[in-house]
Amino acid sequence: MALTAEQQDEIAAARAAEGRTRRPTVAALEALLFEAMPVLDHGFVRVVDYMGDDAAIVQAARVSYGRGTRAANEDRGLIRYLMRHRHSTPFEMCEIKYHVKLPIFVARQWIRHRTANVNEYSARYSILDREFYIPAPEHLAAQSAVNRQGRGDILDGPEAARVLDLLREDAARNYDHYLEMLNEEEDGTPRDPSRQGLARELARMNLTLNAYTQWYWKTDLHNLLHFLSLRADAHAQYEIRAYAEAMMETVRAWVPMAFEAFRDYRLGAVTLSAQMMGIVKRMLAGEPVAQEGSGLSRREWRELMEMLGRDAG
Amino acid sequence: MALTAEQQDEIAAARAAEGRTRRPTVAALEALLFEAMPVLDHGFVRVVDYMGDDAAIVQAARVSYGRGTRAANEDRGLIRYLMRHRHSTPFEMCEIKYHVKLPIFVARQWIRHRTANVNEYSARYSILDREFYIPAPEHLAAQSAVNRQGRGDILDGPEAARVLDLLREDAARNYDHYLEMLNEEEDGTPRDPSRQGLARELARMNLTLNAYTQWYWKTDLHNLLHFLSLRADAHAQYEIRAYAEAMMETVRAWVPMAFEAFRDYRLGAVTLSAQMMGIVKRMLAGEPVAQEGSGLSRREWRELMEMLGRDAG
Amino acid sequence: MALTAEQQDEIAAARAAEGRTRRPTVAALEALLFEAMPVLDHGFVRVVDYMGDDAAIVQAARVSYGRGTRAANEDRGLIRYLMRHRHSTPFEMCEIKYHVKLPIFVARQWIRHRTANVNEYSARYSILDREFYIPAPEHLAAQSAVNRQGRGDILDGPEAARVLDLLREDAARNYDHYLEMLNEEEDGTPRDPSRQGLARELARMNLTLNAYTQWYWKTDLHNLLHFLSLRADAHAQYEIRAYAEAMMETVRAWVPMAFEAFRDYRLGAVTLSAQMMGIVKRMLAGEPVAQEGSGLSRREWRELMEMLGRDAG
Amino acid sequence: MALTAEQQDEIAAARAAEGRTRRPTVAALEALLFEAMPVLDHGFVRVVDYMGDDAAIVQAARVSYGRGTRAANEDRGLIRYLMRHRHSTPFEMCEIKYHVKLPIFVARQWIRHRTANVNEYSARYSILDREFYIPAPEHLAAQSAVNRQGRGDILDGPEAARVLDLLREDAARNYDHYLEMLNEEEDGTPRDPSRQGLARELARMNLTLNAYTQWYWKTDLHNLLHFLSLRADAHAQYEIRAYAEAMMETVRAWVPMAFEAFRDYRLGAVTLSAQMMGIVKRMLAGEPVAQEGSGLSRREWRELMEMLGRDAG
Repeated sequence: MALTAEQQDEIAAARAAEGRTRRPTVAALEALLFEAMPVLDHGFVRVVDYMGDDAAIVQAARVSYGRGTRAANEDRGLIRYLMRHRHSTPFEMCEIKYHVKLPIFVARQWIRHRTANVNEYSARYSILDREFYIPAPEHLAAQSAVNRQGRGDILDGPEAARVLDLLREDAARNYDHYLEMLNEEEDGTPRDPSRQGLARELARMNLTLNAYTQWYWKTDLHNLLHFLSLRADAHAQYEIRAYAEAMMETVRAWVPMAFEAFRDYRLGAVTLSAQMMGIVKRMLAGEPVAQEGSGLSRREWRELMEMLGRDAG
Repeated sequence: MALTAEQQDEIAAARAAEGRTRRPTVAALEALLFEAMPVLDHGFVRVVDYMGDDAAIVQAARVSYGRGTRAANEDRGLIRYLMRHRHSTPFEMCEIKYHVKLPIFVARQWIRHRTANVNEYSARYSILDREFYIPAPEHLAAQSAVNRQGRGDILDGPEAARVLDLLREDAARNYDHYLEMLNEEEDGTPRDPSRQGLARELARMNLTLNAYTQWYWKTDLHNLLHFLSLRADAHAQYEIRAYAEAMMETVRAWVPMAFEAFRDYRLGAVTLSAQMMGIVKRMLAGEPVAQEGSGLSRREWRELMEMLGRDAG
Repeated sequence: MALTAEQQDEIAAARAAEGRTRRPTVAALEALLFEAMPVLDHGFVRVVDYMGDDAAIVQAARVSYGRGTRAANEDRGLIRYLMRHRHSTPFEMCEIKYHVKLPIFVARQWIRHRTANVNEYSARYSILDREFYIPAPEHLAAQSAVNRQGRGDILDGPEAARVLDLLREDAARNYDHYLEMLNEEEDGTPRDPSRQGLARELARMNLTLNAYTQWYWKTDLHNLLHFLSLRADAHAQYEIRAYAEAMMETVRAWVPMAFEAFRDYRLGAVTLSAQMMGIVKRMLAGEPVAQEGSGLSRREWRELMEMLGRDAG
Repeated sequence: MALTAEQQDEIAAARAAEGRTRRPTVAALEALLFEAMPVLDHGFVRVVDYMGDDAAIVQAARVSYGRGTRAANEDRGLIRYLMRHRHSTPFEMCEIKYHVKLPIFVARQWIRHRTANVNEYSARYSILDREFYIPAPEHLAAQSAVNRQGRGDILDGPEAARVLDLLREDAARNYDHYLEMLNEEEDGTPRDPSRQGLARELARMNLTLNAYTQWYWKTDLHNLLHFLSLRADAHAQYEIRAYAEAMMETVRAWVPMAFEAFRDYRLGAVTLSAQMMGIVKRMLAGEPVAQEGSGLSRREWRELMEMLGRDAG
């Protein structure tokens, strides 16, 4: 991540401006506010605004006139109860807004989460930065042999070198040709006065999917936690998980009680089907069980044994 | 509206608590924060939180690192441009949360606006207040003779008196029977120890639709303006319009530039079909025009002449 | 449920009309189409249109040019995999539309599910039917002593009789006064020509929450299953559960593979937190465990033991 | 557009299968069903399912037991009234599902419309086709000099030739390197057994934004019309407009009354602010008017004069 001096100044100015408010404030999140947390090689996530705190969840659940909070352990108990029993509306009462810089192929996964507000930097109006995501060597993975959508071993040696060369060269060449077609420099300065330059909305099509874009993304806490439960998961693609993990830190700072409940009842939780639960009960009763005759497919049996920390047999 | 002493204390305490924040603040809205603005006979609207301001609209439209604002007249011009051309996403970057007390039949209209977050006071858990909406005499209108969903003349004399008596008596009797079935007082004190009391989730069905409920309602500025454009309109039912008008004042305090643009390009605006525009052009060219042969139905012709401030002929 | 002869004729005519289509059809659902399935004392649910079938889920998951289906057991395996791993978008490719007649207090719970399309019968334009929900004696439950939102014992004897009398009398009286204020009969015939009649949008406020309304409600299969998982659950209020159960039958007829997967992985499933799973593993390893020292609250411990079919100790 | 023989067979088989249904059917849309309508150089739109028709709009607006329709001209009048007064919910009762093949940069604009269901072909699992959008010479426009997001003159001569060469070569080279990194052929055949091949979820980042993707996209008629009003507009980028125009034909076939109303009251309509309307009235009264003193900015004045077909003076 390389912020320009001008961008750094803008961020510093925003951080320096402080005012008084009657709204709830969260000191731990104020401390992070506007700061760019680096993600991948040129990306970042930064919180640019927020609304509400742990108490706002309790306040809405109780539809109260004041803050609606009671003893801290009662509030904590209520928040854990709401999370455990999937009462989603009180968590919708908190809202957060991020500024994110991210590769286009990550943006395409991210945007599938529809319950959010988005303003993306427009390549119809503006010129994109000369920045592309190139995986670090330890993330250069082969296709998984067992999982059609997963990664396998890390590539190394000449194969890794060749991949990195191709990614770097193709992204750079395509970007150079993008500017050439625009007949502009990266900062918008015109080049050859004898040419008109291709429309920006057309020239952008020559860019690669690892080019960086950026957006303002705003959502409520319930939908954010849903996003994080999918994207901070081990099955998510590493590149989007890196963003989710940075955002987890902002949630921990913002709403510590809700975050703890989320970690316990969502992130770390497992769901067992009726049939799976029946097998667990039989195991607890000391009965021998095996995949055959269990009513579970081989795949489900493997999933269950994994959850129980047992050998699939 | 009669807030209890305890509720007033809670509100006063919330207003008195002030903290420091790096987030944008809006002094005119801070001044209103938490205060209950009376609506109808027992209802209110009060702002309980907000996020963003006029500058946040500009900031998102420009996807900037800092506040993103420039000279005030440039910002104003951009906001007006965005409103005029129905660019909705920058307005979604501002969020507001209200606490509203309102009759159930109004709540049923309101909830049709789906793009919002709601936590309603639950009559499955709790006992509703002994408060019912009774129209003021000047709002006691007859059915319109010309418009199937509108109001006509104001009722008066014995007919008005009879209506008010019925509304008052029925609501009060049904509420008394609600408590009797619950075997509880309004404050939850048990009554006759020899009876169990009907479940709250069942007893509530005896209440009338003018009983008051309350909720926390949170939405973004774009969706709020859409709500207001429909509900502050002269064709909206008076009772929901009363809420919309109170909320208009909060928007004016919160985002004055966006509010002004909304007033000019939405509230006061008219939409002309291609055929209507053709007729306006012919009128401007001095041609005589009449409904017959205009391609407009009689109803559309009347609507057009009304917009032009002319006699429908 | 009492459909008028005219309504029955309209339904019969709709059922009799048959056409040819290239779209997928589901014979078991066609057999139910337009039929009113009775719910509660005067309500019903009827399917009025649908789009897609089990194969449409598979087709979308594979983004195929044709039907996209393979051997039935491969399709079934894919649908079960998608359900188990909460891949929601393929289930969104099926859509269904219901016509529902339901008490207003049930409609108010139902409408909280925002991801649906709704057209409700308007009491601003029209007169509601003279029908109110009165619980059958076996559903006349007392407030639960242990669960603030649940039901306890069934009321009987004079207390039950009194409740039923109050519900019946209040609803009927308020309806009679509603017509009196309207100065109309139930069928819209004017009454006393010397009076104007109160506007319909006002008079409706005198009705009780057990009056019946009706609406067209349309949603996709993913959101329908989410609705059913909450509303067909034992913790849902009986009156809305009755609707959910009728709708379950329509889903079973429509998409039998998706329904079976839903039943196994959602309805019958349980979710265990990380801490709960740790305790299950310790139990399986033969360790003695107790609430104290388990890291679970008393309430969570009780929930876990219940899931395992054990005494909470 | 080049469908493979296998794809053509799948489509032909789907078209040949016909069944009986009690649901409303639309012959003109059935005739189009499953057929791929070509868009751009390799893209297409095809309708793969639909639900409802013009009568379904009327039926929902009237909440009827049968088809709910009356005389055709009454239905037409009601649909036009609903469209003119922006009653959106009855139009939500119709649903349509498309299969679309489109360049990634177009998909990125399209996906901003959030109220739809989408299943996209996954480049984490599968290999994308070797197809890229290359603009036809008549669409190779320069950046507009007056409008920051528009197109200006058509490029020609050596500048056009150079642009086309760059677009073609870069897309092809990057695709070749994509396969090389995957160590696979376009059809998934492995290449060099001594190499592992980069994970598909990573290799895709080397593709250009004019590569084609495909998805199933399903939405209701109200949201579809909103999409079309923005994307079939002259200000929309040509490449997405080409899709919108093909979809317009499907809407015309499907719901001809709603389509006609949409064309009259949305597509061809103009919205005038209160200030603009004031000026029109003054013009009709014969008063001279000029931008100066009109209360309109120069930009708004120009927009108004354009709508009135006058010289901006």
